[in-house]
Parts: sequence; C-alpha cells; structure tokens
Amino acid sequence: MIKGIEFSGIASGIKVSGLDLGLVFFQEETHVITLYTSNKVKAAHILYDKKLDRKPIRAVLVNSGCANACTGKEGISDLADIGEKLAKLLKVNREEVLFASTGVIGKRLPVDTIKHALPMAVKNLKEAHIEDFAKAIMTTDTHHKLIKETIKGKKEYTIVGIAKGSGMINPLFATMLAFVFTDYPVSPDTIKITFRQAAKESFEKITVDGECSTNDTIMLFTKKGTEDLKGLDEFKEKLRSVMKDLAMMVVRDGEGATKIAHIVVNNARKKDVAEKIARRIAISPLTKTAFFGCDPNWGRIICAAGDAGVPVEASKVDITLQGEQIVKGGLEVPFDEEKMKKMMNKKEISVVVNLNDGKSSFDIYTTDLTFDYIKINASYRS
Amino acid sequence: MIKGIEFSGIASGIKVSGLDLGLVFFQEETHVITLYTSNKVKAAHILYDKKLDRKPIRAVLVNSGCANACTGKEGISDLADIGEKLAKLLKVNREEVLFASTGVIGKRLPVDTIKHALPMAVKNLKEAHIEDFAKAIMTTDTHHKLIKETIKGKKEYTIVGIAKGSGMINPLFATMLAFVFTDYPVSPDTIKITFRQAAKESFEKITVDGECSTNDTIMLFTKKGTEDLKGLDEFKEKLRSVMKDLAMMVVRDGEGATKIAHIVVNNARKKDVAEKIARRIAISPLTKTAFFGCDPNWGRIICAAGDAGVPVEASKVDITLQGEQIVKGGLEVPFDEEKMKKMMNKKEISVVVNLNDGKSSFDIYTTDLTFDYIKINASYRS
Repeated sequence: MIKGIEFSGIASGIKVSGLDLGLVFFQEETHVITLYTSNKVKAAHILYDKKLDRKPIRAVLVNSGCANACTGKEGISDLADIGEKLAKLLKVNREEVLFASTGVIGKRLPVDTIKHALPMAVKNLKEAHIEDFAKAIMTTDTHHKLIKETIKGKKEYTIVGIAKGSGMINPLFATMLAFVFTDYPVSPDTIKITFRQAAKESFEKITVDGECSTNDTIMLFTKKGTEDLKGLDEFKEKLRSVMKDLAMMVVRDGEGATKIAHIVVNNARKKDVAEKIARRIAISPLTKTAFFGCDPNWGRIICAAGDAGVPVEASKVDITLQGEQIVKGGLEVPFDEEKMKKMMNKKEISVVVNLNDGKSSFDIYTTDLTFDYIKINASYRS
Repeated sequence: MIKGIEFSGIASGIKVSGLDLGLVFFQEETHVITLYTSNKVKAAHILYDKKLDRKPIRAVLVNSGCANACTGKEGISDLADIGEKLAKLLKVNREEVLFASTGVIGKRLPVDTIKHALPMAVKNLKEAHIEDFAKAIMTTDTHHKLIKETIKGKKEYTIVGIAKGSGMINPLFATMLAFVFTDYPVSPDTIKITFRQAAKESFEKITVDGECSTNDTIMLFTKKGTEDLKGLDEFKEKLRSVMKDLAMMVVRDGEGATKIAHIVVNNARKKDVAEKIARRIAISPLTKTAFFGCDPNWGRIICAAGDAGVPVEASKVDITLQGEQIVKGGLEVPFDEEKMKKMMNKKEISVVVNLNDGKSSFDIYTTDLTFDYIKINASYRS
C-alpha cells in the first residue's frame, strides 16, 4: 500500500470470467518513465502512450484478455475513446491517462464493454486494492506477482513492483507488463539511467520461449516534487532489486515450466560473444527438453553455443553443470550419469560455460520446455 | 541399385540394438563434393574428411548412435585408426575412405567394436544392399529415406539420394546426413555450383527445431571419367529434385511432428528481409504449437515477423492461411473460427505472409511442435 496511489481490479467482461481490468489512480501528478518492446510490431497502447511520454500523468488503465495489437488506427482511437470517458470520471485530462494491454493479438478492444465497466473500476479505487490490480492483469500466469520494499530517506518511502508474464517472454526485453510504483520523490532525469540499467539486469535477462511480444511494457511511476537525495542510493538499489525480483517471478512462472536454469557464459573474448552464446543456449529447445528430462546432455549445450553465430573454440570450452565440471577443454570429464540425473532433479539448474578465451561474461535465466508448454499453447484461445 | 556402388548396413554394437554401421564401396575411383554444417563446433568426421576433400575416393563408413563430436584429437585419430583397418580390408588407400557420424555428442566412438565389425560390413557389401545402408544411418527417424531417379544421356543413368534426420534440424543447413550417389559421369567442377544451389533450395529450406547440428553433412558422389554432356541438364534437374525430395522426407519425419507447414514470405523489400522473417516464423514455438492445436492464431505469426530483427510495417501485412486471407493491411479479415480450425486439421499447413513492401520472396518448411517432441527429447539418452 502506497499513500496517494489507489488501485482497482474488476471483471469487466473482456474475458469470459475472472478479473480483466486494472486501474491505477494517482491522487497527484506523477512522473512516469517507460520502456517498450523491441518488436517491430507494437501494440496500440504503446503507440498511444508514446505520444504522452515524459509528461506527468494521473492514471493507468490496464486490461488483460485482449492485446489490442495489430488493430490499426482503430486500436488507437479506441483508447482515445475509453480515455475520454475515464478522464471525465476521474476529473483529470485525457492526456494524463496511460494504457497497457495483454492478451490475444489481432482483436480490437470491446470498447463498449470497457466503457460500461469504468464507473465500477473507478468506484472500487482504494489504496488497499493493489492485489486486485495485480490479479486483473494476469493471462496464463498461475499467480499474481507483487514485490514491496521500503527506502529510508528523510522519511520512509515504499516501492512496489507488479508484473504479469508467463509466455511470449524473451529479451529484448522480456516481460509482458511490469509496473513499479513509489511515493519516493525523484525526477525521470535523475533516475532514467538507473531504470534502463535495472531493466537490462532483470527483464532483459530472462526468457521463457524466445518470443518477444508486441506488448512488452515497463512503467516506473515516481512522485513529483522536491527530490529526497538522502535516500537516492537506497532507492536505486531497491529499484534494481524490485525489478530483478519481478523478472525472476516471471521466469519462474514460465508457461509449463518445472525448473528454471541459470546459464552463465564466462571468459569470452567480448561481452557480445558471451551474450549471444548465453541467449542461444537459453532458447535451445533441445537443451530445454534435456533440463526437463534431467539429462546431463552437455553435447546439446555446446552444440547450441556453436550455433550462436560467434566464434567458439570447442577445444577450450569447460562446462559445469550443477556445480560439477563435466567438460574440460571440450572433452567429457567422466561423470556418474545416475548421480548427475539426480542432481538435475531440482527446481534450479545451473550451467556455467567457460570459453577460456577472454574476460567477458553474461548470464541469463530460462525455463525447461515441457509437455505443459505445448498443452497451454496448443489451446490458448479455445 | 547403381552399378559399381556396393552397400552394406549391419548391427555392429554401437547401439544397444539395431543397425548402426553403414558402408559404401565404390568399385572405381569416384568424385566427391561435400557440404558441412555451419555450426562452429564440428564433429570429428568433418575435420577428418575436410583434409581429403576434392580427391577421388573409394569408400564411406557411416555410423549412427555416436556423433563423435567434441571428442578432440582422439576423435580424429580414432577415425584414422578405423580407416587404416577398413582400407586394408577393401584393398584401397586410407586417404580414399571418408566418414560420417550421427548420434549423441561428446562420446568417443567404440573403436574396437567398430573394427571388430568391419569384416562383416565388408563381407555384406552388395549393390542390392542399399536399403540396409539407409536404415543403418537412422537415429530418431521413424523410417529410412531413399529417393531414386533416372537420367537419359548417351545411355541411362541412375541417381539415388539417401538421408537421415529428424531432430536437431535447422539451416544453415538443415540435415544430419545426406548422400547422393550416381553412375552419371560428371566432374566436381562442372556440378559444384548446381550442388550448392540445390542444397540452398532443399536442406537449407527446412527446419524442425531451429537447432543446427555439429554433424550436418551432405555428400554427392559422381562417376569419374569422360563427362556425358548430353544428359547434363537432366542430371542437374534430377539432382535438385532428389535433394529437395530428401529434405522434404526429413522435415516430414521431424521429431514428434504431426504436420508440416510451408511458410512463404512475399513482396519483401529485400531477399534478406523475406528470409529472416520466414525463418523466424518457422522456429517460433508459439506459432508451431498453434499449428499443432489447429489454432488460426495469426497474431503469433505477425508477432514472430516483428521479432525477426528486420523492418516490418504491420499496416501493410496480409496473411493467408490454408488459402484463406485472414489478415489484410495488418488487420483481421473476419473469418469463421470453427471452419478455419477444421481447415487446419490437415497434415499440411500453408502460411503466406505478404509484406507488400517490395518484390523479394523466401519460403521454408517447418513442423508443428508437439507433445512427442518433448517426449523424444526429454529422454533421448535414457
């Protein structure tokens, strides 16, 4: 709960059942910084919000059940239409209302349904309803994702992160939607570099299925007014940790996932090489099915590394799996297969690939690829 | 059956059961042209064979059950050791013997087992044993893959293609092993451009799981001697069709696949743009699971297109699925969902993405992503 920020989450009828419309209302003008998907096809809310960016805002309306992507000019004017009504109800300007959407691509928002539900969404606004909001933005998520931290400046402040995301998760960057709220007063100019860096270290370091969505959005809302520099370092630290924790919640809740795997690539010639290899391993379906099957099949890991489009000298590569070195100089270090299978029968898999070719590193988190991923995605719309 | 080329396929004991060792013996010196994987990590047989390339050869030994990849210098000297014994048995030079391997990465060949089996492999050599050879090189393939065509030059010639491949299939290029044999006399210099082009149009246009293997190998064997130019055009045409047919057999037998999908991208600004978008759609797990689920979820197709790293103007994109236009100018053309689901309940899926942005095209074949892919790969080694 943050003083001055009210939330609601209601069932508006976009989905057949369940909460699907989340509203945030800021009692005072609030700074916002945003990051959007790198996908060339961008959802309507991104195109709409971008025009308003960097100006102080008063409200955000978020829906699940419909991505409002690939809906053309109509998708954007639908938001203007909804925004007009919502602004009136909230007694703010339409330009002070942002949007975010998640769900199926290609369908227009049910504008009348949403407009009809707005009075209820407004009526339900309460500082205490933050969890309803977190639930209303879920799609295939199995639980809502909310992190809270405090910052001690001249007084005590709160920072709360909320995210949704489970499938269509890949850098750059990797989320569907994430929102960070705080009553800590700091301007976008002071915090934007830290925010961008925090995204790089969190949402851009997870993948579920290698699919970068049309709707990815991260928004950070900070309080307008005199900055409290006493708490700035702690705020930056807490911002990074809240975003990292949210990203980890997203990857842990990856569609169908039974495990998460931390892929570390060390001692590369260049950062770019480490990153490409780590990302290539992290999206390899053969590596991910091997994690699912508790199979210490390191050949798939080195094969994916070799297919990353950057130089790899197999004869220099060491691989450590669950802390046990199983490859040295590109060759297998004999290991007890049964013991290793048992060691892999855990919720967390650790893979460290040492290229022994330089000093650069990169790491990323991914999931295993399971029957349930297929089940969820072969029938998502039916 | 080709006069002068003898085959055998036996169970040597590399695998627990089944045929696992294939031998080809050319009664006369034979030309060979090869193409190998683009993976930076290359199997021992590729490193070994490369030294011998372009010289006439007499025999090829192919094993399944062990990829002999990531086996270092020992993996290469193992081949020299086996080659020495095989050359003696065949009364040829060791330099006239090529190798190819497929199977699990990271394990050395069981040299003694193979050497012990060589006399039987040699004893079984017969022109008629070509199917045994085709069976001996299989791994997760559900059937052997063999195509035969004839060419009319000054006399009638035969061209036979044999391939194995099912998983770890992705351009560039996409196969595990493919061999094309012919008694048509043509030199590598005359045919190499056609061969490279035929590979581009066949094995480089299929993907099963986006995984480029360490062992990919295509070999074309042609007869030494005076060229028969009368049949050259027909030979080139048959070479292309044999390689295309083999590639289609590989993708149709993709691990766990219930369907194949033909992804066509038209009217791109540049060939490179069409190719990147087609390949990105073809490896998208969300698109592939939608094919499996008969879900006309075109949003996943356009989302993958937007994530291909090349410019896409969503508002220009048309999409046709199973011959029905379902997207025009980036917007959905209303369609009967139930009817479309039924139309997708076929073995063949056709997706045509029209970018309306230029004149270049590219097409590729892929599979659906199914429960059985997970099943096969979560337990490949156990």
